[in-house]
Amino acid sequence: MMIIMKTEATENELNDVISSAEAQGVRTHVIYGAERNVVGVVGDIRGLDREAIAMMPGVDHTMPISRPYKLASREFQKDNTVFNVNGVKVGSDEILIIAGPCSVESRAQLLEAAYAVKEAGAHALRGGAFKPRSSPYAFQGMGEAGLELLAEARELTGMPIVTEVMAPDQVELVAKYADVLQIGARNMQNFNLLHAVGKTDKAVLLKRGMAATAEDLLMAAEYVISNGNRRIMLCERGIRTFETATRNTTDINAIPVLKAQTHLPVFLDPSHSTGKTEYVTAIARAAIAAGADGLIVEVHPHPEQAVSDGAQSYKPEQFADMVKQVHAIAEAMGRKVPQH
Amino acid sequence: MMIIMKTEATENELNDVISSAEAQGVRTHVIYGAERNVVGVVGDIRGLDREAIAMMPGVDHTMPISRPYKLASREFQKDNTVFNVNGVKVGSDEILIIAGPCSVESRAQLLEAAYAVKEAGAHALRGGAFKPRSSPYAFQGMGEAGLELLAEARELTGMPIVTEVMAPDQVELVAKYADVLQIGARNMQNFNLLHAVGKTDKAVLLKRGMAATAEDLLMAAEYVISNGNRRIMLCERGIRTFETATRNTTDINAIPVLKAQTHLPVFLDPSHSTGKTEYVTAIARAAIAAGADGLIVEVHPHPEQAVSDGAQSYKPEQFADMVKQVHAIAEAMGRKVPQH
Amino acid sequence: MMIIMKTEATENELNDVISSAEAQGVRTHVIYGAERNVVGVVGDIRGLDREAIAMMPGVDHTMPISRPYKLASREFQKDNTVFNVNGVKVGSDEILIIAGPCSVESRAQLLEAAYAVKEAGAHALRGGAFKPRSSPYAFQGMGEAGLELLAEARELTGMPIVTEVMAPDQVELVAKYADVLQIGARNMQNFNLLHAVGKTDKAVLLKRGMAATAEDLLMAAEYVISNGNRRIMLCERGIRTFETATRNTTDINAIPVLKAQTHLPVFLDPSHSTGKTEYVTAIARAAIAAGADGLIVEVHPHPEQAVSDGAQSYKPEQFADMVKQVHAIAEAMGRKVPQH
Amino acid sequence: MMIIMKTEATENELNDVISSAEAQGVRTHVIYGAERNVVGVVGDIRGLDREAIAMMPGVDHTMPISRPYKLASREFQKDNTVFNVNGVKVGSDEILIIAGPCSVESRAQLLEAAYAVKEAGAHALRGGAFKPRSSPYAFQGMGEAGLELLAEARELTGMPIVTEVMAPDQVELVAKYADVLQIGARNMQNFNLLHAVGKTDKAVLLKRGMAATAEDLLMAAEYVISNGNRRIMLCERGIRTFETATRNTTDINAIPVLKAQTHLPVFLDPSHSTGKTEYVTAIARAAIAAGADGLIVEVHPHPEQAVSDGAQSYKPEQFADMVKQVHAIAEAMGRKVPQH
Repeated sequence: MMIIMKTEATENELNDVISSAEAQGVRTHVIYGAERNVVGVVGDIRGLDREAIAMMPGVDHTMPISRPYKLASREFQKDNTVFNVNGVKVGSDEILIIAGPCSVESRAQLLEAAYAVKEAGAHALRGGAFKPRSSPYAFQGMGEAGLELLAEARELTGMPIVTEVMAPDQVELVAKYADVLQIGARNMQNFNLLHAVGKTDKAVLLKRGMAATAEDLLMAAEYVISNGNRRIMLCERGIRTFETATRNTTDINAIPVLKAQTHLPVFLDPSHSTGKTEYVTAIARAAIAAGADGLIVEVHPHPEQAVSDGAQSYKPEQFADMVKQVHAIAEAMGRKVPQH
Repeated sequence: MMIIMKTEATENELNDVISSAEAQGVRTHVIYGAERNVVGVVGDIRGLDREAIAMMPGVDHTMPISRPYKLASREFQKDNTVFNVNGVKVGSDEILIIAGPCSVESRAQLLEAAYAVKEAGAHALRGGAFKPRSSPYAFQGMGEAGLELLAEARELTGMPIVTEVMAPDQVELVAKYADVLQIGARNMQNFNLLHAVGKTDKAVLLKRGMAATAEDLLMAAEYVISNGNRRIMLCERGIRTFETATRNTTDINAIPVLKAQTHLPVFLDPSHSTGKTEYVTAIARAAIAAGADGLIVEVHPHPEQAVSDGAQSYKPEQFADMVKQVHAIAEAMGRKVPQH
Repeated sequence: MMIIMKTEATENELNDVISSAEAQGVRTHVIYGAERNVVGVVGDIRGLDREAIAMMPGVDHTMPISRPYKLASREFQKDNTVFNVNGVKVGSDEILIIAGPCSVESRAQLLEAAYAVKEAGAHALRGGAFKPRSSPYAFQGMGEAGLELLAEARELTGMPIVTEVMAPDQVELVAKYADVLQIGARNMQNFNLLHAVGKTDKAVLLKRGMAATAEDLLMAAEYVISNGNRRIMLCERGIRTFETATRNTTDINAIPVLKAQTHLPVFLDPSHSTGKTEYVTAIARAAIAAGADGLIVEVHPHPEQAVSDGAQSYKPEQFADMVKQVHAIAEAMGRKVPQH
Repeated sequence: MMIIMKTEATENELNDVISSAEAQGVRTHVIYGAERNVVGVVGDIRGLDREAIAMMPGVDHTMPISRPYKLASREFQKDNTVFNVNGVKVGSDEILIIAGPCSVESRAQLLEAAYAVKEAGAHALRGGAFKPRSSPYAFQGMGEAGLELLAEARELTGMPIVTEVMAPDQVELVAKYADVLQIGARNMQNFNLLHAVGKTDKAVLLKRGMAATAEDLLMAAEYVISNGNRRIMLCERGIRTFETATRNTTDINAIPVLKAQTHLPVFLDPSHSTGKTEYVTAIARAAIAAGADGLIVEVHPHPEQAVSDGAQSYKPEQFADMVKQVHAIAEAMGRKVPQH
């Protein structure tokens, strides 16, 4: 950490800062500048309160040098974390495709969707039983009945289930049915929930919050890992900006940024990151070209009848065409999308 | 709702849209334009799936005309919601000031803070026992022991307690001690939590999310109200933008926007919305001048020893000076900050 | 245009709105709703003042139905605009690569860069003689001497020249030397400059402003086209958001959005849109995968000696590797990067 | 400047960085950390290329310690810059109010506006003769004829004229008529224009760009000052964010931030920063409460007939009411709005 003193800081103030830091068990090193002085702090600064030092008289501001997360960092673990989802080695050169409806609406709808996405090349089935909706008047999901249908769909198709969990006291129930626990964008900093899923043995699909930086996302992952669960798929799903042509702005930079900073696999959700079906395939291709390890896509057998997210849901034939194009890009990258 | 057809939409497509909408129980009205046609939908559109219609062949997009929230809207209830917090009529011409430390750290710290903010003119005491922290390695709060200290501080000072609740299964515990349940910015769309606090009889301080629009905030309030709890204080606490000179960007426009659109009282938290003590008083004055009904401010007896948010916490004497200036602005507005 | 009346609007107010609109030469059509009425306006609304109508008593707000640009729109011209730059048919299935240093610094630097990028597969040479710099103390470019060096580089390598013009009174001078006039992001809404380049017969590379929507960019293009110049390359170069891990946020959605809304070719500048060399190739690949028609990349023979933008400039060998990877993605897309 | 080395940087790389920096005339100081080393650079770093050093092998990134602007900074000049506009000492405890129509439309409109705003308490008259409009089909201003009308209005009312200049080659013409040259938000980084107005002896109203940080604004001011012109009024006019309830987001934090960082007077434009008349007075009050030195407000005698910005223009009586409320806030702040 660097402590930047004010230009008008006195020598006494400088000395107080040094004493205070050293009393907390770190070493300091002063750089005497022409305009102002800077105190370099060396040692384990986790015990040091950066904000308290920033408040001391004569201090202008402090600057961190190290990253605030550890277990999730590429510096801590050089090699990719690789784990198996339905035979696909996530985090390796193999690309995983998750697809399915936004919400589980009925047995017929879910099974039709499940068979269709499997046929088109998906490896895992998504579907929401508990739905975070901005309006209290919107459909909130089928709840446990939806989870049971998801389990039946797994039975019939052999595909593992990815489904959202919204509260710590739901984790046990959802984990009973799901193969992958999804944390939605609105819950990325629901820390009680992160702790709870970190204590399960289920893989986690962790979506980036709408106003979260890549670093915030890695800190959220750190919550999960520090509870013992390392099987995390990070997922870019668009951030909120001033642009209104699309529902969100796909931060494609986040793909190489995250791949550089963490060993965890990185996914992209082109359905939410664009919000319009006409752009989903272009962004799915871009994700793979940028280095993503997988995709999660909304597919509905009859989008015009969907109770949620219809406007961004693909029909099975659109999805099948997308998968073909994604195959071509993956090959151009020297990677592969495993086929059943 | 308006359904805007594509320029190249056929008459069949137009007729299908009309039939589909009318089959869902609404009336339609077509405006035949030079370039494209528009279908106006009249009637109760809550049962209508806007996204499904947006997916139909020939439809370009749909546009809502009405607001998506109802109980929270000024159209539903013209008069301000007014309720009592420690003798202050929140939502009237009286201004409520809530102050206290970010986290409850110890009995000594909390009581010193409580007496100091009361002396300086605060009406209610804030303090976190459960803390949402972006790092799993940061102090996560004292938990129930912190709640007990808050209750003791209330006993001794007579000030009601405002404290955060982070998960649905914590609501019962926190409500046992608190007078006002705070929902933090990161939990503004934690819908399970909103349902849970909506079922209590405690007032709620609902903070705006970092990437939430004013409308999103009102939808979150609608979750609480629709469960029966109308005593909600909405709280602007800064949004995330590209500006890095301050921790967040105070959206001062949100004060008159919210006052126009809802009957609920509107607060501002200048400590979080700036993140730097040197700007807190200026923004507190601006909040009142813009029409806010109250303030919530971080005050710590010794900010340089604070375990969290030290850099934005006021010392008691800074807070006392702020209260004086806020009094002057309130008077210029024809309002008052009640004194004990 | 739709005119949405207030819920409490009187019949007189409604009639005034109708009369006012019809007096301006359009037809109107009222939709009488349960809560509020809406007036649809039919006909050529270019002569109509939307803001004035929005001010009338009883009007809540107005909503445009048509796009505000015309000549640049895909509705006006269905087929791609295609034009030739150094034998590459820009806007067709051929991809154009522009590369070179941020600033022209010296004859040696420019020629070394020019030969290197040509060798690596670039089709055109970029280089700034007039530089927009946020600091008045930073290098502002070599001016006309730089333009002369660019002309010499063209002579020697056969590559056309892309260079920035910053002011209307510079257009004549720059157009004397350049093949493509670049409008920088900070000048995207410098309307006098847009008029001026619209009157030349040079192709224009128009960069998106940091806070400009895709629609704003198309309106800027409309300025150029409406002056008679249709040879425009639109260029995404990153927008400003809260994310600080990269210099800008590449809005990859803008590629398919622009391709859908306009017939003009669409480029991406991965050097500026990331600001860090380690991410440039990943984003260049993503751009092509998303459907971009070309790239503009900063390459410097010795980035560590660059007077500007060193941190985001590629060395020739990094660029050569990028071109190879871009070739592979283009092929996977059924497109090609023409080779000399 | 601090140079943060990578964790895996070798000793040779460290030595190369040190040699390179010292060869450029600065002193260095190494802090050997547990994880990584940091090189502090002492001396005049203006001659040093931060980006080039950031490119050297073993360097992770660099961090500036000093501000990039000088003449505009409070550190360079402790006391407020104060100058006279129509008898008001701008930058002192006196508050300047500028008002008038967005565009000069006709003699009758301008004179009616001028008399009305003077009567209501304005000190200076604004009005655009050259208009930056996002659409090429929108009214672009009356040009020199508009300037002549402004001069006539000054003659008749005694109020000085504030009007926009859009291009370097317009500065001479506009300066012949105007008392204050306005630089619009879209031109804040039109560096040629900044140089040109910096060479005049006219006061400058410099508006913040929609995506510009406070620091960017101060760098733009530095361009003007470094050309010799110190009479600059900085003007917050809203930034672009995800919020759509208002046209822009008023960054009220920018008022105290700028007042702390620069000696130049700071204004706010509540008409543009909200875009809706119903919020203008609330934000005007907030601006003064936050410490602004003045306001610039759009007033039109008949907003419903305005050719531009009607929706955000006040009628004279609304403006007169706003001025009264601003007086009250100014008094509560111990400041005054001088009366004629």
